[in-house]
Amino acid sequence: MKVLRNVQEALEFTKGNYQKSVGLVPTMGYLHAGHKSLIDEARKNNDIVVVSIFVNPTQFGPGEDYESYPRDEERDFKLCEEAGVDAVFTPDPKEFYQNHKTYVTIEDLKDNLCGKTRPIHFRGVLTVLTKLFHIFRPTRAYFGRKDAQQFLIVKKAVGDLNFGIEIVPCPIKREEDGLAISSRNVYLSDEERKAAPVLHRALEKGRAAMTKGMKAEDLIKIIEDEIKTEKLADIEYVQVVDTEEIKDMDVIDRNCLVALAVRFGTTRLIDNFFFEV
Amino acid sequence: MKVLRNVQEALEFTKGNYQKSVGLVPTMGYLHAGHKSLIDEARKNNDIVVVSIFVNPTQFGPGEDYESYPRDEERDFKLCEEAGVDAVFTPDPKEFYQNHKTYVTIEDLKDNLCGKTRPIHFRGVLTVLTKLFHIFRPTRAYFGRKDAQQFLIVKKAVGDLNFGIEIVPCPIKREEDGLAISSRNVYLSDEERKAAPVLHRALEKGRAAMTKGMKAEDLIKIIEDEIKTEKLADIEYVQVVDTEEIKDMDVIDRNCLVALAVRFGTTRLIDNFFFEV
Repeated sequence: MKVLRNVQEALEFTKGNYQKSVGLVPTMGYLHAGHKSLIDEARKNNDIVVVSIFVNPTQFGPGEDYESYPRDEERDFKLCEEAGVDAVFTPDPKEFYQNHKTYVTIEDLKDNLCGKTRPIHFRGVLTVLTKLFHIFRPTRAYFGRKDAQQFLIVKKAVGDLNFGIEIVPCPIKREEDGLAISSRNVYLSDEERKAAPVLHRALEKGRAAMTKGMKAEDLIKIIEDEIKTEKLADIEYVQVVDTEEIKDMDVIDRNCLVALAVRFGTTRLIDNFFFEV
Repeated sequence: MKVLRNVQEALEFTKGNYQKSVGLVPTMGYLHAGHKSLIDEARKNNDIVVVSIFVNPTQFGPGEDYESYPRDEERDFKLCEEAGVDAVFTPDPKEFYQNHKTYVTIEDLKDNLCGKTRPIHFRGVLTVLTKLFHIFRPTRAYFGRKDAQQFLIVKKAVGDLNFGIEIVPCPIKREEDGLAISSRNVYLSDEERKAAPVLHRALEKGRAAMTKGMKAEDLIKIIEDEIKTEKLADIEYVQVVDTEEIKDMDVIDRNCLVALAVRFGTTRLIDNFFFEV
């Protein structure tokens, strides 16, 4: 497995992949079973698999957890090596963004859900992905459905800008008690960790009650009521949006995303499910 | 010469260029000697030459000349055919930007010179170029130095986003009386056309007087005073900026761009020169 520490090394690697299919798994590291499932999926369908491990500063706002975001390069490299990854890319953020001025942004889709409290987040995501896509020229790129808004935005942006890359979504991986696996779960205290599975329980309760023609507000109430049974849970949003424009829906009359963000202490967790009418 | 009318046809064409060098000349059509010089330069150094002919709606602001911008497809195709172009790309703007939401923007460099009065212009330029670059995967792309700010912005954005495309600037082409050739010159009345060469005369006067260590304001005064000898000329700006950040310079102590925009009636003309210290 090659370790690529800067853009120059990465471009040299890409030259050698001429005429091969390349699967890219963009990550911020601290890899877990969710990332592993993306890598395995990429490994199945591509000649070459590249994993980027880069805590991307441009997608963190002031006061967010850029500095404290968990990092463990040695463990990440071991996981990648064992999963048959061909190359990991871990650039230095200062070099990667030297005197950087250019950004990729998306209108409307970034304004709802997580974008409401994280206004520059998706601009940072699209900018780093554009750079990675240009450097590695992947055939396919893999994204987890836990970051549902990210997946919808990336798919839309890749189409709008004619990137010619297949965006492959992969299912959410969960702990045995239902908590969606996330690098940020390490922030939770023991007590918060015990409380956190309420998110999945609440979403499952909502999904079971969901019917075509139902009012979104009735569904949201079922989910919120369940979350509120846990005192440690502080709801940021529970929303039902369409999967094209990410706008709030009144009635469940077409394909939609049911998504939530909830804080446990200072830790912000997200979870969701897609519903096909 | 192939005529590509939509993205699908363009992608089919690109597939066939595998392993060949591709030179792209992005234009808004109504081709003139300036465009011809870009095409000739591209023809010299690439296996394949593509010219896009597309009046790009996203780079025009409200009240600008998108609707009235001159168009002559038949003449453009003839010029391209005679210049040995392999393919022209003329998409329908509605199909090209169907439900479009994603934009490429640049900070700082877009805020000065033409960007002051055309706030969305360079966002539109970078967005259409990103799409064209992804569709045609050029080795090199050719830009005239008349649009000096555009050239500097494109070069910076291509580096920032790791496009891996060589941006080739080409010299300004001029009429015999010195007027920079532009598709917009057709807007000028006979009287305005006679007055317009004052721009080149003024810049040449400035260039002749220019020395290292000179104050920018003194240079600007020389140029403005010459322009003001023509009553029909209405100055929008005459500025001296550095070529990295496009910020106004006080003293001519490093490489710079001397640029102007001047109106003759409703027609806005630009011209410039680069000065190396």
